[in-house]
Amino acid sequence: MFLAEGYKSVVEFIDSSYQVEGIYHTAPFDPKMLNLSRNINLYAISATEMQKISGLKTPQDVIAVIAIPQWPKPGNNNLKEKFSIVLDGVQDPGNMGTIIRTADWFGITDIICSTDTVDAYNPKVVQASMGSLSRVRVHYTELATALPKMNLPVFGAMLDGGVIYKTDFGNEGLLLMGNEGNGIRPGLQKLITVAVTIPRVGKAESLNVGIATALFCSE
Amino acid sequence: MFLAEGYKSVVEFIDSSYQVEGIYHTAPFDPKMLNLSRNINLYAISATEMQKISGLKTPQDVIAVIAIPQWPKPGNNNLKEKFSIVLDGVQDPGNMGTIIRTADWFGITDIICSTDTVDAYNPKVVQASMGSLSRVRVHYTELATALPKMNLPVFGAMLDGGVIYKTDFGNEGLLLMGNEGNGIRPGLQKLITVAVTIPRVGKAESLNVGIATALFCSE
Repeated sequence: MFLAEGYKSVVEFIDSSYQVEGIYHTAPFDPKMLNLSRNINLYAISATEMQKISGLKTPQDVIAVIAIPQWPKPGNNNLKEKFSIVLDGVQDPGNMGTIIRTADWFGITDIICSTDTVDAYNPKVVQASMGSLSRVRVHYTELATALPKMNLPVFGAMLDGGVIYKTDFGNEGLLLMGNEGNGIRPGLQKLITVAVTIPRVGKAESLNVGIATALFCSE
Repeated sequence: MFLAEGYKSVVEFIDSSYQVEGIYHTAPFDPKMLNLSRNINLYAISATEMQKISGLKTPQDVIAVIAIPQWPKPGNNNLKEKFSIVLDGVQDPGNMGTIIRTADWFGITDIICSTDTVDAYNPKVVQASMGSLSRVRVHYTELATALPKMNLPVFGAMLDGGVIYKTDFGNEGLLLMGNEGNGIRPGLQKLITVAVTIPRVGKAESLNVGIATALFCSE
């Protein structure tokens, strides 16, 4: 199970295919606002109880307990003729949440993560994804064995690749982004079919991985 | 004064025009690593003292106390023939830090903020900027009176503007980004000369402001 906190986020999961197991709210919140068409258990709780449940410093007045979904395994059959994001060891929950939100903006429906990537159901990730987690499938798998089977071009974010603005992305592929500090691990670098670079004009050592992912999605 | 924490960040400020007032380090850290060419006061302190000074949960072994700089007022004389970022009420320190880092990557040297924008010298902003604050000038001013005097095109991030990929940005201008929840306030919207939109393909309600800023910089 995982938690979604706050009215907006809760509503987005209610309107999704996710299995909402229960909704907990404090007294001032009127559950009619949720417009429940599904039969979901509602529990009125005290502010102290909400404080104990919440992962936020300032808890909101409604929280949902939701089952972690099991998605069909990502593969060549369901990733063809579209773009998906692949994350190799992204660690920061804020980055992960922003990447999910950005994917949703650009209509990307699948994010495939190495097993050591931060948990997408971590409360901070759910919060930062702003409800977009309800529309984006996040998978965890052994990338080194899974990627070759997908039989798709792998566009890897590297510091020494071709200029992103001149890259022909075609109409399908995997956008492979690396860990915040170390980038893409060597074992995966060799699976890259097109190394792509966001040209640097100034002096920052690197771009934030959420920013780099967004620029890939945009291009 | 403000604090820069950690070896990398401290070194970037030492190598900048900033006035470093003092450097505090715990015992295992060797100040020779700093390669000080300037005469800066060094203080060896205990881990407990570092814990008290630091704004981080896990303090690093070196911290610098630096004077907040006074930059020349941004205006038409020093913003011509380049792009600058204008922030109207951005609140989140992580977003602010990422925007500074992104500006630095794209060679943007000036960020002009409304007076209610988060303080760029907030420890969380300094941390998220990854040293880029040492190379980017952040100004605070009353935007409604300052912007017209700059006599530059104002490209405003709006939900109903022209498509960003078809926008002719020319060779100078201000990239105006709004608050996380409310966007650009109405009083400033009327100063926009070109309203620009990042087209949405999926269903996310909005993009993170750091992401949107990066896409503007990239274009």
